[in-house]
Amino acid sequence: MNYTIAALPGDGIGPEIMESGLSLLETIGKKFKHDFNVTVYPFGGAGIDETGDPIPPQTIKGCQEADAILLAAIGGPKWEKAEKTPEDGLLQLRKTLGLFSNIRPIAVSDSIAHLSPLKTERVKGTDFVVVRELTGGLYFGQPKMWNDEEATDTLYYKKSEIEQIVRQAFDIAMTRKKKLTSVDKANVLASSKLWRKTVNEIATEYPEVTVEHLYVDAASMKIIQHPTAFDVIVTENMFGDILSDEASVITGSLGMLPSGSHSKKGPSLYEPIHGSAPDIAGQNIANPMSMILSVVMMLRQSFHLYEEADALEKAANDAMDAGFLTADLGGDTKTTEFTAAVQANLAE
Amino acid sequence: MNYTIAALPGDGIGPEIMESGLSLLETIGKKFKHDFNVTVYPFGGAGIDETGDPIPPQTIKGCQEADAILLAAIGGPKWEKAEKTPEDGLLQLRKTLGLFSNIRPIAVSDSIAHLSPLKTERVKGTDFVVVRELTGGLYFGQPKMWNDEEATDTLYYKKSEIEQIVRQAFDIAMTRKKKLTSVDKANVLASSKLWRKTVNEIATEYPEVTVEHLYVDAASMKIIQHPTAFDVIVTENMFGDILSDEASVITGSLGMLPSGSHSKKGPSLYEPIHGSAPDIAGQNIANPMSMILSVVMMLRQSFHLYEEADALEKAANDAMDAGFLTADLGGDTKTTEFTAAVQANLAE
Ligand SMILES: CC(C)[C@H](C(=O)O)[C@@H](O)C(=O)O
Ligand SMILES: CC(C)[C@H](C(=O)O)[C@@H](O)C(=O)O
Repeated sequence: MNYTIAALPGDGIGPEIMESGLSLLETIGKKFKHDFNVTVYPFGGAGIDETGDPIPPQTIKGCQEADAILLAAIGGPKWEKAEKTPEDGLLQLRKTLGLFSNIRPIAVSDSIAHLSPLKTERVKGTDFVVVRELTGGLYFGQPKMWNDEEATDTLYYKKSEIEQIVRQAFDIAMTRKKKLTSVDKANVLASSKLWRKTVNEIATEYPEVTVEHLYVDAASMKIIQHPTAFDVIVTENMFGDILSDEASVITGSLGMLPSGSHSKKGPSLYEPIHGSAPDIAGQNIANPMSMILSVVMMLRQSFHLYEEADALEKAANDAMDAGFLTADLGGDTKTTEFTAAVQANLAE
Repeated sequence: MNYTIAALPGDGIGPEIMESGLSLLETIGKKFKHDFNVTVYPFGGAGIDETGDPIPPQTIKGCQEADAILLAAIGGPKWEKAEKTPEDGLLQLRKTLGLFSNIRPIAVSDSIAHLSPLKTERVKGTDFVVVRELTGGLYFGQPKMWNDEEATDTLYYKKSEIEQIVRQAFDIAMTRKKKLTSVDKANVLASSKLWRKTVNEIATEYPEVTVEHLYVDAASMKIIQHPTAFDVIVTENMFGDILSDEASVITGSLGMLPSGSHSKKGPSLYEPIHGSAPDIAGQNIANPMSMILSVVMMLRQSFHLYEEADALEKAANDAMDAGFLTADLGGDTKTTEFTAAVQANLAE
């Protein structure tokens, strides 16, 4: 089979971990006889440097025509004052491709529970998914303006946007432990009142799913206090940004978490949860696991290449089990050494 | 001296812990010869039940005329569908009194570090203050509306509102370790761009204070990863709601945290950080420490009665050290038993 992939290495540690992910994808392609046609496009700060635009037209076109998109990471102090920032480019990409749902699995396997900042007993067994709305809310609502006197952002949702993401979350809950936690601030926000009503309506279509509503402040506490109590969390864009990042650190292994963003139809986008980490860029010390697992996620969810995904995942986990650990995990394995170890496992 | 205090017991465990706080305040008054004239007003769900309004006119008037306000906790499932909810009453109280700043100290003493959900070594030594803007942003911005098709909230700030809270945060930083972390989402929100610019401007008036800017998602991670790295955190209303609650649980002792809300002039309001906990209400098992420490905070900050505040604080801490611990701290001391133990210490 033939698969077209748009790769956006971006900024900071992005290019290094993308290189790791793509070289392993190539090996999987050879091993399982698939053609992965990867084209690399300028994006983010790299897009600005190359073309003056964080998301130049050829990048949009390349992404739209691809079967899937791999993004590494974007942003950095260098472009903070740009007229159109790397982040603006990312938001435009999400909106243009209609990537309304961002899925972030948060799991703590017993073997890494000791890495968590939380007490080991408390975090062991944590296994949930954050479903974040990605193309609405405060990020995109109009008016959005500021001057020297005042500033306005708008948290706007159409009911249909809420339905779309909530339904996806229920569908995911049906494949798991059938428990859905909807997070809002319905005691204060009008948008949350519509959100909660919509969740309750859609809940009637999924009688098997247990639904819980939590205020966002209570959710931020419960993620720390009882992380094992969650199965699927669904929430709007801004709350999802905060809570999914909070949730990602309780695993103690931010460098290992992938995420997937999906649209109604069209290519999905896979990327690490973490940022571009400019402070450690170019030193060959970044952990490429999150990128490798993003490739695994793509193989599974976009291409349904389960055997291939399992092989890559196993090769990567075996490398870690054999003691190849990057600095974030307390080891001194270099990025390229880790990739080579995974390659060696795939060659066996 | 003569002090007028408005007491708002509210709902759930509110009345029980308020009773504890007020009885100890009375004892302090006798011991140190002060007249604390306390009047109890209906507020929250109790206000709805008594008068049909979570914040009836006599409550507003009583609060406005008081030297300080003690609030226990409000809200509960019973009033969730009320036309004007307990929370609406609280927001109206904040706005009417101009309580623009909410100060939440987060400290983990070595003796309670083991209670934290975080690994003990990581949380030990945590000692910071969250300064939350309380009368602007998404909570109050107009338009705020919803119907069956769509919903809108508005995140609006005037520059003067930002200046006011940021200046207060700098002032607090000057009395502490002179480090200020400003939290925003300046890579996405217009209001955060104005926020960040304003912080940078005011920073020039406080050359001794080290200023750091964090995006809210990064802040939600750092609170878990490096809680000891903070001194003073300043942020807007909604982010402050989420982050201060997140921060409160890393102490492992939510039942022990007070907070103070202040206006330009007029009475300050003191209240526990936690909510009304309807699930354990009326069982005489709530921890009254947060309310007692709210009284301590009032004595110190509103009345400058330092000796009195120290005496009450010491009596309460001594009771805990002597093993009087409520259920949340792993003990079986009842609310009234704990209060009695503190009373006994004060009588000595
Ligand atoms: C870079 C930023 C705009 C982005 C967001 O807030 O959505 C990032 O934090 C994320 O979570 O993907
Ligand atoms: C009850 C609610 C409206 C309130 C808030 O969000 O401000 C509470 O969570 C708080 O933090 O005091």
